[in-house]
Amino acid sequence: MSDITPLSSYLEDRWQSGEGDGSALYDPTSDAIVARASTKGLDLAAAFRHARTVGGAALRGMTFAERGALLKAMSKAIHARREELIEVGRINGGNTRGDAKFDIDGATGTLMYYAGLGKSLGDKTLLLDGDPITIGASSRLQGQHILTPKPGVAVHINAFNFPAWGLAEKAACAILAGMPVISKPGTATAMLTWAMVKAVTDADILPAGVLSLVVGSARDLLDHLEWGDVVAFTGSADTGEMMRRHPRVLATGVPVNVEADSLNATVLLPDAEDATYDAFIRDVHREMTQKAGQKCTATRRIFVPEDMIDEVVEDLGERLAGTKVGDPARDDVRMGPLASKAQLTSAREGIAALLGETDVAWGDPAGGDVLGVDGGGCFVTPLLLRAESATGGDAVHRLEVFGPVSTLLPYADLDEAAEGVRMGQGSLVCSIYGDDRKALGAIIPRLAGWHGRIVVTDAKIADKAYGPGMVMPHLLHGGPGRAGGGEELGGLRGMKLYQQRTAIQGNGPLLARLLDR
Amino acid sequence: MSDITPLSSYLEDRWQSGEGDGSALYDPTSDAIVARASTKGLDLAAAFRHARTVGGAALRGMTFAERGALLKAMSKAIHARREELIEVGRINGGNTRGDAKFDIDGATGTLMYYAGLGKSLGDKTLLLDGDPITIGASSRLQGQHILTPKPGVAVHINAFNFPAWGLAEKAACAILAGMPVISKPGTATAMLTWAMVKAVTDADILPAGVLSLVVGSARDLLDHLEWGDVVAFTGSADTGEMMRRHPRVLATGVPVNVEADSLNATVLLPDAEDATYDAFIRDVHREMTQKAGQKCTATRRIFVPEDMIDEVVEDLGERLAGTKVGDPARDDVRMGPLASKAQLTSAREGIAALLGETDVAWGDPAGGDVLGVDGGGCFVTPLLLRAESATGGDAVHRLEVFGPVSTLLPYADLDEAAEGVRMGQGSLVCSIYGDDRKALGAIIPRLAGWHGRIVVTDAKIADKAYGPGMVMPHLLHGGPGRAGGGEELGGLRGMKLYQQRTAIQGNGPLLARLLDR
Repeated sequence: MSDITPLSSYLEDRWQSGEGDGSALYDPTSDAIVARASTKGLDLAAAFRHARTVGGAALRGMTFAERGALLKAMSKAIHARREELIEVGRINGGNTRGDAKFDIDGATGTLMYYAGLGKSLGDKTLLLDGDPITIGASSRLQGQHILTPKPGVAVHINAFNFPAWGLAEKAACAILAGMPVISKPGTATAMLTWAMVKAVTDADILPAGVLSLVVGSARDLLDHLEWGDVVAFTGSADTGEMMRRHPRVLATGVPVNVEADSLNATVLLPDAEDATYDAFIRDVHREMTQKAGQKCTATRRIFVPEDMIDEVVEDLGERLAGTKVGDPARDDVRMGPLASKAQLTSAREGIAALLGETDVAWGDPAGGDVLGVDGGGCFVTPLLLRAESATGGDAVHRLEVFGPVSTLLPYADLDEAAEGVRMGQGSLVCSIYGDDRKALGAIIPRLAGWHGRIVVTDAKIADKAYGPGMVMPHLLHGGPGRAGGGEELGGLRGMKLYQQRTAIQGNGPLLARLLDR
Repeated sequence: MSDITPLSSYLEDRWQSGEGDGSALYDPTSDAIVARASTKGLDLAAAFRHARTVGGAALRGMTFAERGALLKAMSKAIHARREELIEVGRINGGNTRGDAKFDIDGATGTLMYYAGLGKSLGDKTLLLDGDPITIGASSRLQGQHILTPKPGVAVHINAFNFPAWGLAEKAACAILAGMPVISKPGTATAMLTWAMVKAVTDADILPAGVLSLVVGSARDLLDHLEWGDVVAFTGSADTGEMMRRHPRVLATGVPVNVEADSLNATVLLPDAEDATYDAFIRDVHREMTQKAGQKCTATRRIFVPEDMIDEVVEDLGERLAGTKVGDPARDDVRMGPLASKAQLTSAREGIAALLGETDVAWGDPAGGDVLGVDGGGCFVTPLLLRAESATGGDAVHRLEVFGPVSTLLPYADLDEAAEGVRMGQGSLVCSIYGDDRKALGAIIPRLAGWHGRIVVTDAKIADKAYGPGMVMPHLLHGGPGRAGGGEELGGLRGMKLYQQRTAIQGNGPLLARLLDR
């Protein structure tokens, strides 16, 4: 790769380049610069106005079926360039082929899912929310809740780890709900997002103003927020807090949906059947190594009955030992580098902090074998740590190392396990492996309030269950507390962020006629 | 009133007095001090811990039916002291008997409504949200969304204008959802809230830790927020912004539901039938004068076809002229004073600002007749202003005078009316009076995205319709943009703030058994 691709932004329906060199984007396998992106001098104010007026009017004038058709066309345009995009995922993200497919197919699949929802909602432009309610002595006096598009623009700020899926899952919900989108991917891996949106604009399928893309530094992006806009953010808790305290966010009260770091836990229950135990080992291994552990849903804390710890270390260690790390271009490599030098530095610091209160159960904090690379690159090899107890420690419940690093926490009884999980203060997902109905029935309600999703795996579904790290459009994605308090996806639920709920109150028969549209 | 009542706070299940004199509470009719409240030295940290642990565990251990029974008992205990509370509303709020009943009966009615919801939800402790969803090739792999109580405490910060209803409507939703409550009324009128909670604690009906009351300055209230807590606030946009930027709110991402100022509009459509027009005049008059205009849902902007302005001024003026203002203890008085000197000052400043861009259509900005009062008191007499056009002006769309003050805005066509309404940048409620289905069908979807509630009044329901200012527990209360972006009430919808939505994913038949509780 001697070429450096200049990336541009798509604003006001044209690709526009910022001034100067801007930020460099790297190949994290070789440390070579592969692209550059600048947003300097771009007129974001005009882009916001254009999206709000032209894009908003276009979408509000369309039925759900028509909006769904847009999503289907987007999905097809992206899928048509799948091989090219997989290659970009490797070059600018260090993705193995499997990791790139997980991201890109996740994007097209989510778009198709919401396209299907749009089709099933059909020729309507507003959604009824619940049934008519009689509110007075006369049955004529009724109320009906409806959902209509919020009147502004949806600003999407995504993380570097899913440059394809991140844009698609947010845009699918917003566009189907009827809001235009301005999307900003994490700069470090934005080449894939840029290539994906190029596939969409080349296909010329979206009405003017519906989708804009900002590639490079965010600069004054949030300064242009107005009443009626929405922000959805995925990234670190620190950046999430920065957005919440942005003067325009505070002044306008624009909703900010945050998906942030979380210390997702898995709990192996005592007396799990063999098939359940095997699924547990399989899933923990996948969550540690897929995308080099750079998933917001990856398992960070592994709660295990204390008398099973040694067995788990042995079985997980065996799997980890068989996972080849190195240049993702090689067919035998199963795990690539982290996405950037910044992530490498952050992961190394995090490992050092965790080692202050944990022991190494498997792996080498100084790094293990890396295939096909002569030094350099952003590699972290898998590392399994072990805490003294489920509820001791501090960093282990608070500090997310965004890489192939997880910690085993031995527990004596279910109370201790539940309390340990709770110490994470809210997560995107928790997974529980077990077959004891009584234990499952006790622990699920206890943990539900701290989680956006709980994955229960028992022997009956062990061989076909998806692991906790796979986010599906049918189910809620987001978690309370430390995970940011956001709600994305979950079918129609994911559109709520972009919709205003309104109670319409009046003459029932008249309302029925007016709202049937 | 020569007695000054010392008010205390109810924390850790006992009434506790703060140190020193604290804040003075006044009778706004006579300017006499009627009570004092101090929170100095109270251990709020201990109160939060107690509520979270003891109160939270108690509620989570109860079924919806049992929680509903608590609300019913609260409602009855408050209703049993109705006459006494009406008197307190007059003494510390300047309420006429009608205004006090509106507040107190609103409180007991809302509690009873949610008690009924609890009964109908029955012997369950968690709510299913939607149907099971098949998520894989195998029909055994399913997802089910559930709603469970958030694990912290609900902090309620209420406005001075509804000391009874404000506590009740928030507490009803939180307690039925399963969260303990710490409620802080606006200090100026907190004597009524204090007396109401005394009725509840004297009846000894709530489990320990379920309800706490902070009477007086908030001091360090928000410093004790933790992950899992929730804040619901009603009051000014400025204070709402202050809460959103509180360090603990930013650090924990605790959800803050804000109900703030809004410039609620009413639109009289051209060609309204006589009955519809009469309802319009009746409702605008009520919204201007009920509670002396101190309702967050009161109508502030009155959009009228330009050729009907003179007729509307005449008809409204006639009604306003018949509304006697003065000492609320007098039987002939229909409107009392504002609630406090601070409100009086703020209203006077607001009137001066509005007069910079409007003319007086009816009333005297210097004040009209006040019955039974020899000067003093916090009186503002009704004032109807008139703007040049529906979309001109600035303050009229932005500045809420929290008193009996509204502005007429003449419009030429529906586009202009809709644009004028939109300039309020989001309101709690908009009301539309008309019989032209085509016009109604055009304007409702256009305005819905800017409103939490739209009240449509046509000739068929004109005589029995509730005005827009009446908040009902069945329907959503809250509005986007300037109105704060909150969502309260609306039946089960009002519980959502206090519930975590969780997708449970796994073996369908097993989940069905585990979640049937």
